[in-house]
Amino acid sequence: MEILKQRIISDGTEIGTEIVKVDSFLNHQLDVSLFLEIGKEIKRRFSDCEINKILTIESSGIAIAALTALYFDNIPVVFAKKTQPSTMTEDFYGAPIKSFTKGTVSIARVSKQYLSSKDKVLIIDDFLAHGEAAGGLARLVEEAGGTVCGIAAVIEKEFQGGSARLRQAGYRVDSLAVIEKIDNGKIFFKES
Amino acid sequence: MEILKQRIISDGTEIGTEIVKVDSFLNHQLDVSLFLEIGKEIKRRFSDCEINKILTIESSGIAIAALTALYFDNIPVVFAKKTQPSTMTEDFYGAPIKSFTKGTVSIARVSKQYLSSKDKVLIIDDFLAHGEAAGGLARLVEEAGGTVCGIAAVIEKEFQGGSARLRQAGYRVDSLAVIEKIDNGKIFFKES
Repeated sequence: MEILKQRIISDGTEIGTEIVKVDSFLNHQLDVSLFLEIGKEIKRRFSDCEINKILTIESSGIAIAALTALYFDNIPVVFAKKTQPSTMTEDFYGAPIKSFTKGTVSIARVSKQYLSSKDKVLIIDDFLAHGEAAGGLARLVEEAGGTVCGIAAVIEKEFQGGSARLRQAGYRVDSLAVIEKIDNGKIFFKES
Repeated sequence: MEILKQRIISDGTEIGTEIVKVDSFLNHQLDVSLFLEIGKEIKRRFSDCEINKILTIESSGIAIAALTALYFDNIPVVFAKKTQPSTMTEDFYGAPIKSFTKGTVSIARVSKQYLSSKDKVLIIDDFLAHGEAAGGLARLVEEAGGTVCGIAAVIEKEFQGGSARLRQAGYRVDSLAVIEKIDNGKIFFKES
């Protein structure tokens, strides 16, 4: 997705060789015009799929998922929680998710009320790196007996191997901007 | 906002006399069609204001803020973070926010890059209870020298006093559904 790649180059900041910081439009301040374009593009790429629910994880995936849902006939968006809210008194599906940047493991939780065997789910996240979050969300869907139709990421850091692992596990993965490497403060995208 | 009140009555769950759980459409599973109506209504109520930024706090405010921004010419949405991300290496504005349900205090953080003295900010949140989150967000805006144009909440629990305190402090507060009390498992709304 060309406008996204251009935006990453113009407004992203590289931290070392592994982290791209896109706080000015994706992770802290949100450019909803760009998110509408992202939503439209995700719909185009998954237009052959019958999808009735979008699943993401708090926090940065939420706005992207919500604006993407507009292109999927306003289907429900569910976001997994990383901590257990005091009001989550019912049963939930849980999957451990390792954060490589933080060195921590959290449990992604979705109440059993919001995932079922009837669900055909598109998983959306802002970043796809080691594939921990997307893989965890896929496990939640499968624990509920539902179907994972695909995984859509806005930015993929291919060199961290998440997409390869997820594809090997049988998932359809599509990322709008795929970074091959970050070298000397320069971002190299994979040709689409 | 009548459709919102009806939805709270039909799908909300009361926990005791203080908590309304609306996970099925607002806090865990998101009904984006309803959020579009909410956004339209917030725009109508604040149509006399010159607003150039929307500020909310993770996680449940994000989707509401993002869909509301569509009715304000796609102005930027900034969400305050409750924990300090490993990539937040720059200076930030911070305000303590007390959670009465959890009995904890967290620091709402916004990077100094995304709030400035030029900003005319609409604060949006899902719930307005004691007013801690909205008040904290207002302090962040003011610390940056910006202007708080108003505070919009989807659901207000008036009996917890937040809106009264915020109005006394000089803020314009407008909530789409105002709950006067929860009694015997029944929700009583304030007449608009």
